[in-house]
Amino acid sequence: MKNLRMIIEYDGTGYYGWQRQRGDITIQQVLEEILQKITGEKVTLHGSSRTDAGVHALQQVAHFRTSSRIPERNLLMGLNSLIPGNIVVRDLAEVSDDFHARYSAKSKTYFYRIYNSPVRAALQRNYCWCVFRLLDAGRMGEAASVLTGVHDFTAFCSARRETKSPVREVYTARVEREEGSFLKFTIEANGFLRHMVRTIVGTLVEVGKGRFTPMDFREILESRDRARAGVTAPPQGLFLAGVKYE
Amino acid sequence: MKNLRMIIEYDGTGYYGWQRQRGDITIQQVLEEILQKITGEKVTLHGSSRTDAGVHALQQVAHFRTSSRIPERNLLMGLNSLIPGNIVVRDLAEVSDDFHARYSAKSKTYFYRIYNSPVRAALQRNYCWCVFRLLDAGRMGEAASVLTGVHDFTAFCSARRETKSPVREVYTARVEREEGSFLKFTIEANGFLRHMVRTIVGTLVEVGKGRFTPMDFREILESRDRARAGVTAPPQGLFLAGVKYE
Repeated sequence: MKNLRMIIEYDGTGYYGWQRQRGDITIQQVLEEILQKITGEKVTLHGSSRTDAGVHALQQVAHFRTSSRIPERNLLMGLNSLIPGNIVVRDLAEVSDDFHARYSAKSKTYFYRIYNSPVRAALQRNYCWCVFRLLDAGRMGEAASVLTGVHDFTAFCSARRETKSPVREVYTARVEREEGSFLKFTIEANGFLRHMVRTIVGTLVEVGKGRFTPMDFREILESRDRARAGVTAPPQGLFLAGVKYE
Repeated sequence: MKNLRMIIEYDGTGYYGWQRQRGDITIQQVLEEILQKITGEKVTLHGSSRTDAGVHALQQVAHFRTSSRIPERNLLMGLNSLIPGNIVVRDLAEVSDDFHARYSAKSKTYFYRIYNSPVRAALQRNYCWCVFRLLDAGRMGEAASVLTGVHDFTAFCSARRETKSPVREVYTARVEREEGSFLKFTIEANGFLRHMVRTIVGTLVEVGKGRFTPMDFREILESRDRARAGVTAPPQGLFLAGVKYE
């Protein structure tokens, strides 16, 4: 048995997220079915992160075990020729037997793109959140800096809690203006709660609009009260940008 | 009668280009039908440029005459609320009676994006041409510089010729490497022949691969022989970036 690691890019538009579920089409399911076709074995893919419906990935990492003797290079080419155009496997390599895409991960980085313009986006409509009112990126960045360090992120977590501890360590959290009316929020942490990035972004946008101050933002984090935070930002602005391992 | 100018952004994926035609859905048709619904009049839109099926626009310009008294701001908002998400009207303003989106244009700028990576793109698949072999952007830029000035562009024109003269003046033609394995070709000219940008790009890629030298490229231009040029690059990498008027 070999343990193989894949690096996957996907356009989440039209998928019900990463994780296999009954009835709806997911990235995991598409990849597992094609892998099964190629290897002739039942395959279980373990992803680093369960991205939600509509969320994209530049570098999702997943692993699976197989007794197939097909060389990695051929497997990679076969996969990419059979999966739909909105998914691509960028790399496929054998890794040590104890590698686990989810449990071996040391940190994950997400970014979230906001299109801050009085007119909505046409070309980028599936890859950003359109916010019409002019946002103060400086104040949003100030608020975001509060996130770094070890915190209980209950205030930014979806009500349906799936993990035991709501404590995470954030390594980086910054807001940048980008060319063409875009704002980009980047966050790296040792793990994320359900809807955490999107709820942080929804709350940062309130800061950008002047409804919350950066100090309010800190108080919301410390309150551990989801009801005080902003809306959950829509999924299509969110990208899993990368995963780091030891 | 007012003469109104629109600036339009669109994602050309799934459309049969700008120009109205029987049976297939086009940008012009979608906009005309909604304008007719709002104003109650039959409307004819004149675009600056007939973009092909799958080609995108950041700033297409069009004009139309109307006797409607709906204020421009309301018309703009009405339009944007009724057209599909892959089209957006960025601006709508009254212009002088002699303004013509096509005939008053002094220059148009297009850019073309190539994704130069050994693995195809998933997220950008509808917005670039994937070229697997590593391209020499320096030599492509050298060849592109030959295009500036007044030339007969017959060598880079589709066989089905629709205009009287194949002579155009190119003001800018350059190739740049961009973040994330992208190459961008930008060209500004006083006008373009059918498939001109895409045929130039197809030929520049041959230069990038080392099959043609920049000197060969010059000779192809001077030969006025379409058979010597490269393939017509696929439409989805092409963007109408802007139109200049007096």
